[in-house]
Amino acid sequence: MTELWLIGMGTGHPGHVTMEGMAALRDAACVLIPRKGAGKEDLAHLRHAILRDAGAEARVIEFDMPVRDESQPYAQRVSLWHDEIARRWQTALADAPEGPVALLVWGDPGLYDSTLRIAERLTPAPRLRVVPGITALQALTSAHAIPFNTVNGAVTVTTGRRLRDHGWPEGADTVVVMLDGQCSFQTLAPEGLHIWWGGFLGMPEQVLEAGPLAEAAPRIVQTRDAARARHGWIMDTYLLRRTAE
Amino acid sequence: MTELWLIGMGTGHPGHVTMEGMAALRDAACVLIPRKGAGKEDLAHLRHAILRDAGAEARVIEFDMPVRDESQPYAQRVSLWHDEIARRWQTALADAPEGPVALLVWGDPGLYDSTLRIAERLTPAPRLRVVPGITALQALTSAHAIPFNTVNGAVTVTTGRRLRDHGWPEGADTVVVMLDGQCSFQTLAPEGLHIWWGGFLGMPEQVLEAGPLAEAAPRIVQTRDAARARHGWIMDTYLLRRTAE
Ligand SMILES: C[S@@+](CC[C@H](N)C(=O)[O-])C[C@H]1O[C@@H](n2cnc3c(N)ncnc32)[C@H](O)[C@@H]1O
Ligand SMILES: C[S@@+](CC[C@H](N)C(=O)[O-])C[C@H]1O[C@@H](n2cnc3c(N)ncnc32)[C@H](O)[C@@H]1O
Repeated sequence: MTELWLIGMGTGHPGHVTMEGMAALRDAACVLIPRKGAGKEDLAHLRHAILRDAGAEARVIEFDMPVRDESQPYAQRVSLWHDEIARRWQTALADAPEGPVALLVWGDPGLYDSTLRIAERLTPAPRLRVVPGITALQALTSAHAIPFNTVNGAVTVTTGRRLRDHGWPEGADTVVVMLDGQCSFQTLAPEGLHIWWGGFLGMPEQVLEAGPLAEAAPRIVQTRDAARARHGWIMDTYLLRRTAE
Repeated sequence: MTELWLIGMGTGHPGHVTMEGMAALRDAACVLIPRKGAGKEDLAHLRHAILRDAGAEARVIEFDMPVRDESQPYAQRVSLWHDEIARRWQTALADAPEGPVALLVWGDPGLYDSTLRIAERLTPAPRLRVVPGITALQALTSAHAIPFNTVNGAVTVTTGRRLRDHGWPEGADTVVVMLDGQCSFQTLAPEGLHIWWGGFLGMPEQVLEAGPLAEAAPRIVQTRDAARARHGWIMDTYLLRRTAE
């Protein structure tokens, strides 16, 4: 593998892929696609649908994602898992056609995603190309038709764990939270905060809720539980903003 | 105007537009395009090129951007300017064909952009649709092939003015700075900071610099001055990260 192209695919809407992403899929010699476990077939399906839409003739090469060794401490477990994914890419590509290898990465390859860190483990190091993609943040703000920031204001992008451990980030007037399996907005004092929440953003299953945090929080927990029960899994993202009082 | 579609156009690369954005341009009844002053013709040119690529048959309606009244205090001046833009949209659309009106918005319509706030001023209020677009943040991280965040880390997105006035945001390990006409990274103590900088991101004129802040700062100031001298203007964005010591 001499060139690896990481192509942002957006967050579940086939229309999220950019013209540059579509052209890259057509120019690639092969496309690496993870075979996912049960329950996430729709996502593998989406990758194939995008390739079809692009008119890509690249050879499709599938690989199985390894399972994480839960007996290891967190950091080590993740690092070993990344090593193993890199190995599987190289094995899967053993007799790939020559030319650029493309990988469709959920959302944007730069945002809370490990693909760049896995790619760093490849030897010899391929030339990397990153094609940006629509993120869950943008899928959220566009679905609600709200701005990301207040006028000249700062925004903190963070995780559910950090929000629980550190509370409201000092000095922030807008906070966007990803990777939150626990509706961690419930740990904040809700006074003076407004929330805009979205599950399955950009997808046909999309669900939206918004309101002052005090009144919206229980509603969101309920909507989220119901959507997760219906589909077997969920991905959600939300934006919190201090409201002028 | 019963429907207004704000379509993210990316940061200067025609390939940044998403498939959803292209389809929306084809479905719109007309497209509103600002006539820009001298020196920025390339940007108006880009909007027309995107319409051509999309195969859009929408009626193109141009309007002149008003000039800001510099005699007013800042907040009032911006507010009056937005009022005036909303009025000009409505005047320009006086005998537009019926159906959705599209506007191509630089980058993503949610990020440091006033279009949503101008749209709020329209009476009667049209139905708003926002189509996300690639931002300067993503154009920056993809050009450098770097992640936006550290593993599970938080990111603060802020402006040059805020960085000057408030210094390094409390608790942040990554800071992305936009709207900075003054290379405000020079006001920080550079120890332990790494910078990735980009001008004209995504455009043929793209320039990139990166390195430990102490050594890279003067280099960036120089590259930026030279690029601005060459083109008559510049747009730049940068990401600062604390490096493990
Ligand atoms: C591993 S991160 C990947 C983010 C992705 N690279 C991006 O640019 O959006 C996964 C997190 O992204 C958010 N996310 C991704 N897709 C989403 C969707 N369709 N709807 C809601 N949240 C989503 C959720 O917060 C989820 O926990
Ligand atoms: C008014 S804001 C608009 C941002 C836009 N909505 C976006 O999503 O990127 C303008 C700022 O965006 C950044 N920017 C926009 N386009 C850029 C480009 N092509 N290269 C570098 N910076 C850019 C600069 O920091 C500039 O000061």
